Amino acid sequence: MKRPTILVLGAGYGGLMTVTNLQKKLGVNEAEIVLINKNSYHYESTWLHEAAAGTLEPSEVRYDIKDVIDQSKVNFIQAEVTKIDVDEKVVLSTAGEHTYDYLVIALGFEGETFGIPGLEEHAFSIANVLAARRIRDHIEYQFSTWATEPEAERDDSRLTFVVGGAGFTGIEFLGELANQVPVWCDAYDVPREKVRVICVEAAPMVLPGFDPELVDYAVAQLESKGIEFSIGTPLVEATEEGVKIKTGEEEFKFIETKTVVWAAGVRGNRLIEETNIESARARVRVEPDLRAPGREDVFIVGDCAFMINEAENRPYPPTAQIAMQQGQQCAANIASLLAKKPTTAFVPDLKGSVCSLGSDDAIGVVFGKKVTGGTASFMKKMVDNRALFMVGGLGLTLKKGKFDLL
Amino acid sequence: MKRPTILVLGAGYGGLMTVTNLQKKLGVNEAEIVLINKNSYHYESTWLHEAAAGTLEPSEVRYDIKDVIDQSKVNFIQAEVTKIDVDEKVVLSTAGEHTYDYLVIALGFEGETFGIPGLEEHAFSIANVLAARRIRDHIEYQFSTWATEPEAERDDSRLTFVVGGAGFTGIEFLGELANQVPVWCDAYDVPREKVRVICVEAAPMVLPGFDPELVDYAVAQLESKGIEFSIGTPLVEATEEGVKIKTGEEEFKFIETKTVVWAAGVRGNRLIEETNIESARARVRVEPDLRAPGREDVFIVGDCAFMINEAENRPYPPTAQIAMQQGQQCAANIASLLAKKPTTAFVPDLKGSVCSLGSDDAIGVVFGKKVTGGTASFMKKMVDNRALFMVGGLGLTLKKGKFDLL
Repeated sequence: MKRPTILVLGAGYGGLMTVTNLQKKLGVNEAEIVLINKNSYHYESTWLHEAAAGTLEPSEVRYDIKDVIDQSKVNFIQAEVTKIDVDEKVVLSTAGEHTYDYLVIALGFEGETFGIPGLEEHAFSIANVLAARRIRDHIEYQFSTWATEPEAERDDSRLTFVVGGAGFTGIEFLGELANQVPVWCDAYDVPREKVRVICVEAAPMVLPGFDPELVDYAVAQLESKGIEFSIGTPLVEATEEGVKIKTGEEEFKFIETKTVVWAAGVRGNRLIEETNIESARARVRVEPDLRAPGREDVFIVGDCAFMINEAENRPYPPTAQIAMQQGQQCAANIASLLAKKPTTAFVPDLKGSVCSLGSDDAIGVVFGKKVTGGTASFMKKMVDNRALFMVGGLGLTLKKGKFDLL
Repeated sequence: MKRPTILVLGAGYGGLMTVTNLQKKLGVNEAEIVLINKNSYHYESTWLHEAAAGTLEPSEVRYDIKDVIDQSKVNFIQAEVTKIDVDEKVVLSTAGEHTYDYLVIALGFEGETFGIPGLEEHAFSIANVLAARRIRDHIEYQFSTWATEPEAERDDSRLTFVVGGAGFTGIEFLGELANQVPVWCDAYDVPREKVRVICVEAAPMVLPGFDPELVDYAVAQLESKGIEFSIGTPLVEATEEGVKIKTGEEEFKFIETKTVVWAAGVRGNRLIEETNIESARARVRVEPDLRAPGREDVFIVGDCAFMINEAENRPYPPTAQIAMQQGQQCAANIASLLAKKPTTAFVPDLKGSVCSLGSDDAIGVVFGKKVTGGTASFMKKMVDNRALFMVGGLGLTLKKGKFDLL
């Protein structure tokens, strides 16, 4: 009898956690597990803001998928998924055609620019490890170009950096920039006062959903390091010369800059919108057991899945913590189905949330307790290490973990 | 009685060696020593090819001038020299006007583009620590841009790098690139075969003046790492799209590239050409005691000085080794003049010359013996460490030295 095929698309937190749990639960003869991913490596998408600011090297934010999968059980194919057809039960990739008995869609997030003119062309996005690295390279090239330009021709807009969005990613990126700007100023002989880092946010607050006391702490810390905030001022256009922001009913301001990093919106993967599965911004409101509505054989985990936190009547945020827990549950549910048992509803176990403010500071709520500063920063690194441990055990944690624990 | 003022322009190898030797030889009451330099730091100009390829951080290539001067004896002024008037005995800088009793011009080299159209605008030059860093940033930005471009729009000329010149600087830079390209390919997920590094040289040989056997070794080593050589093919024009090289009597070839690093010519500092001192390409044929011809009170050391090696009937090359020895002799001669004694002719003590081919390989002649590979690379690092030792003693050597000695 042919073994059933479990096809997992994407080796982010959700997909990789699904695969590593499946390989633990299932024997070689019980199923064929196929994992398709564009790159040969997994990257820590929650660490990308560090790669984008140059505080971590790209090699530090990724590891080889082959280091954490059991190749006797998992067939890893490095290819880019190009089409998903859940009616015909076939997936196309740059490596060919793939059929399946169970499909796990774990393709992660994409940036969402909300149709704001010019953003697509002129803004950078912290979308993956290469895109993150490119932001760093771009910023450093602005510094070195400014520093080597003849003084009369110096273009100070090279040293103005705009971050769009004061959500989790925006704030974590600003935290890294706040620490890195003085390092760059020193390396390139640039006076600190020449450099401006401006956070532009449409909403009237920073870090919506976070405890206001912690938010005040974060803003005060970042401002003390020279970050400027422009809150409640939507970015309405980006051009080659800079960005236009709406500062009042009919008032606009133009900020000259060559660097806009858009960190204000995420959506699911566009391939989902080309399937017959209903979605909003490519995120699918999944059933309690993580299956796509009305589909017996399609699971969706991670940022492409959308679930409501009934207690708070708001959606769960697209976080690594939830993606990994979904991966565990998804693997368990597939194992149940193979054993002809019923599936179990996914219940997130929210241990808390920590937002870093550079490598030495953070804010967060952990096990119900508010933390700031060094303690929070320590917790953040523990969270990062825990993610490594869950996927790759102690070996991977020691190899790739964060042990500069203050 | 007023102490005589010794004004030293430039804190490169020659200038800094002059100052540190003067401060050893002269008491506080014997002279006022003034050092003017554009930056607060000295940089190892013989290490710049490493900063340009990203194998050394800029901070590793420089040290604070205040760490090596005795501030009770030397007045250090951070300013850019803007005019030298040896008739009126006055120097202008961005810090004001400076008079002197003895002047030491040690302003180092500038790039020489020989009037080749487009080079000034489109080529990079490994001219100083910031310019070197900019080359690295530019190259890395080309890699990350290529890697994140949609595949259909990929511009492979981003991954072609042209180095103009197969002299000492060109070859040392190629050595670093040869080692660094695989690192970049790995970091940016770029296939190695997409990257081309081409050395374009007008002369019919590589490393003129070097032992042919060693040159063959160097070329073979670099070629084995994928460096291409186009020798005897003058670069005749640079544009935004690439470079035109002359491959035959009436034959030309165009290489598409966004990165041309011009390492083919040096000249003295332009300020010398605005004085009444005779010079060729801003280099002055100095008297045996290092004074400018016909000037009792003006010494010239380092790359702005030009001397003939009578034994070989060719000029001494502009090297750090010679600049440092000239600095020692210049300090001794000024001390002699203050003591009303005659000056002494400068006689270079050529210990040899080592050309690095990356951090793990080199070629050279040291104390008359030919060396290659690890041995030569070790010697090169010793040469680098020795320069640190001569200026700043053991402390500076331990702090900034190269101890990855294979």
